[in-house]
Amino acid sequence: MSQKKRGILIVFSGFSGSGKGTVMKELLLCYPDRYALSISATTRKPRALEEDGREYFFKTKEQFEEMIAKNELIEYALYVENYYGTPKEYVEKQLEAGKDVILEIEIQGALKVKQRFPDTLLLFVTPQNADILKERLIGRGTESEEVVYQRLSQASEEALRVEEYDYLIINDTIEDCVKEVHSIIQNEHRRVSRNQEFINRMKEELKRFSKGE
Amino acid sequence: MSQKKRGILIVFSGFSGSGKGTVMKELLLCYPDRYALSISATTRKPRALEEDGREYFFKTKEQFEEMIAKNELIEYALYVENYYGTPKEYVEKQLEAGKDVILEIEIQGALKVKQRFPDTLLLFVTPQNADILKERLIGRGTESEEVVYQRLSQASEEALRVEEYDYLIINDTIEDCVKEVHSIIQNEHRRVSRNQEFINRMKEELKRFSKGE
Repeated sequence: MSQKKRGILIVFSGFSGSGKGTVMKELLLCYPDRYALSISATTRKPRALEEDGREYFFKTKEQFEEMIAKNELIEYALYVENYYGTPKEYVEKQLEAGKDVILEIEIQGALKVKQRFPDTLLLFVTPQNADILKERLIGRGTESEEVVYQRLSQASEEALRVEEYDYLIINDTIEDCVKEVHSIIQNEHRRVSRNQEFINRMKEELKRFSKGE
Repeated sequence: MSQKKRGILIVFSGFSGSGKGTVMKELLLCYPDRYALSISATTRKPRALEEDGREYFFKTKEQFEEMIAKNELIEYALYVENYYGTPKEYVEKQLEAGKDVILEIEIQGALKVKQRFPDTLLLFVTPQNADILKERLIGRGTESEEVVYQRLSQASEEALRVEEYDYLIINDTIEDCVKEVHSIIQNEHRRVSRNQEFINRMKEELKRFSKGE
């Protein structure tokens, strides 16, 4: 049982205002040995207190385009003239070490990852209803009314593609939500499709026994 | 949230000697409000202490064949000149009432059920390895050596179709195994495909908000 199994690649998405960032942070704090958060590469400039290799891998445009050319990114996108992407090497190392690796990316990127790695687990976080979402966006107090409506409009677009995710996680309380995410990921290790090695060994052993060996 | 959701149909199978009967019994004892065990119909004669509607629904051959003709069985099979089958009505009532219904049937029946109801959840219980299976079968002390080898040979056949199940549950201790089965079933309720109503409602609400309503 203690043989090191390969980790699972997980995409964690959710509406802006769903609380997904907080859930993610708590999950990593609670189970630091189980999970690794993928660190994105970007060409945008570091902000105060951001460190290379912690918040992001900061790259020049040339470096980033070289990573694209060499197929070193799982997915990438261009936002407001800056590249953002998921470097493959770090993710691969963590998966090999048996850690479940979490990508916190939006829905477009999520579906690209799933297409390329079909056994990616896609989780989507949502509050109980749209009223709560709106209240949370307003409650932040950091956004103008216009931006709140932009976010809600974006959520409305995103909702159209939620069906392509595997699990829907309702964030009522952070604590329950973290437990639920952890439990879903741990159970995922029990999927038949992720236990082919065990099944093959069992088949061999039973074949021997049924021959009376 | 408290709207009554339809239950999930679950098939619980496992090698003879896997301990699946004990796990099942414990699960139902621990969570009597969540689960209902489907009761099979059979044409075999009741044994001492067996009650109609508890262990089985006891039927005559004519009654059983009428149930087949009227499509009142989810699946059925003939073993040693007796029919065994799963009556649809009881299962349907329990699912409607929001209970998750468990069928404890073998692999052939399981796959028939899955074919007919594609959103059935298929769980397969196994011990850690074939040695343990053999020891358990011998340890029962109720079977001759010949029967033990028959069982192992049957397990060897069954292992060939384990890949068609959804989850593989390793029964190390009954207590952990019961917890794991419960957790897998509960998480199954979070599958996107089982939350279409929630998603549709969310879409409607967000559409209204993004129009500034």
